[in-house]
Amino acid sequence: MIHQERFRVETAGRGLYELTARVQGKVKASGIRTGLCHLYLHHTSAALILCENADPSVRTDLETFFQRLVRDGDSAFTHRSEGPDDMSAHIRSILTGTALSLPITEGRCALGTWQGIFLYEHRSGAHQRRLTLTLNGE
Amino acid sequence: MIHQERFRVETAGRGLYELTARVQGKVKASGIRTGLCHLYLHHTSAALILCENADPSVRTDLETFFQRLVRDGDSAFTHRSEGPDDMSAHIRSILTGTALSLPITEGRCALGTWQGIFLYEHRSGAHQRRLTLTLNGE
Amino acid sequence: MIHQERFRVETAGRGLYELTARVQGKVKASGIRTGLCHLYLHHTSAALILCENADPSVRTDLETFFQRLVRDGDSAFTHRSEGPDDMSAHIRSILTGTALSLPITEGRCALGTWQGIFLYEHRSGAHQRRLTLTLNGE
Repeated sequence: MIHQERFRVETAGRGLYELTARVQGKVKASGIRTGLCHLYLHHTSAALILCENADPSVRTDLETFFQRLVRDGDSAFTHRSEGPDDMSAHIRSILTGTALSLPITEGRCALGTWQGIFLYEHRSGAHQRRLTLTLNGE
Repeated sequence: MIHQERFRVETAGRGLYELTARVQGKVKASGIRTGLCHLYLHHTSAALILCENADPSVRTDLETFFQRLVRDGDSAFTHRSEGPDDMSAHIRSILTGTALSLPITEGRCALGTWQGIFLYEHRSGAHQRRLTLTLNGE
Repeated sequence: MIHQERFRVETAGRGLYELTARVQGKVKASGIRTGLCHLYLHHTSAALILCENADPSVRTDLETFFQRLVRDGDSAFTHRSEGPDDMSAHIRSILTGTALSLPITEGRCALGTWQGIFLYEHRSGAHQRRLTLTLNGE
């Protein structure tokens, strides 16, 4: 059995937006008990990651790390039509990835105790992000 | 329904090679309308990524970034039997990944407007790269 | 046909632990001939990667690279409740990923000649790591 649906997430600029409850709700509604949950982001300047979900300082430090690793407005970058966070967002997106596959066990995504599903907005401005959820199981 | 096939991509050394049309053609030929497209690269010194497909300067800047992040011939590396790009290619491959999973919607990979599927050759020399495409859907 | 099982891996601290034979054994036992093998790690401070499996110096150099890229005890990090390798392990986990999808062909994971499946323990201490294997095929 395959279930597929599209949905949108509004971001308010750079940072992590938790989607765990929303995704778990969709998995539950599908009635699938065992299988895989595939979450896909249709963009090249944001990402989907699993991140520690308990202490918000993890998310702050993660952003600190990426700001240092991929400098906004780096003088070596030539692609800058949309501003200093344009090319850095593309690189961050490739490093962090735009898809997640998660096991479904007993009717829900079998996340670890400290794992949360997050959309990582890499652009500094607000964006409407499109996603596709594909569930495959029985 | 599962469809699986192998194919090869010839590279002319480091850089990005777009596979979008080729993959979309295989998905269309399979007749699968809804499901998942899994693309897998059988190597540890190249990668498969989604990247902005409109402005070629994104690909140039991405390569600039990786050359700086993972130095060829880094004196800290001990694995260098195949030259200065040997170990750096392995690290780049791990950072960028060797598999992609994409949703299939209405008979094609549901890519975002600016998303293209690319093989990222991390070695400086030309290589023949082997891939497996697995489609799962209905 | 979907087959799912959980298993555990004991680590002795930071480094790579090969799982290839164990995973191939589970795929073989399932009887699935063609499809996908999904391996998932239920943690945010370790990872699952594909890595060159022949020369151990690749694994040493990979660790050298990550120690330099993500500094343990970095003074910019505020999340340090479990020690200097706490936040660095979370960042490494996001950069290297906690899931792998591999094609199953003729009853086994169709790995490239030099590809091995590894659990990458990012914490310095020993840990018991939980994984879920989901096989989907025919």
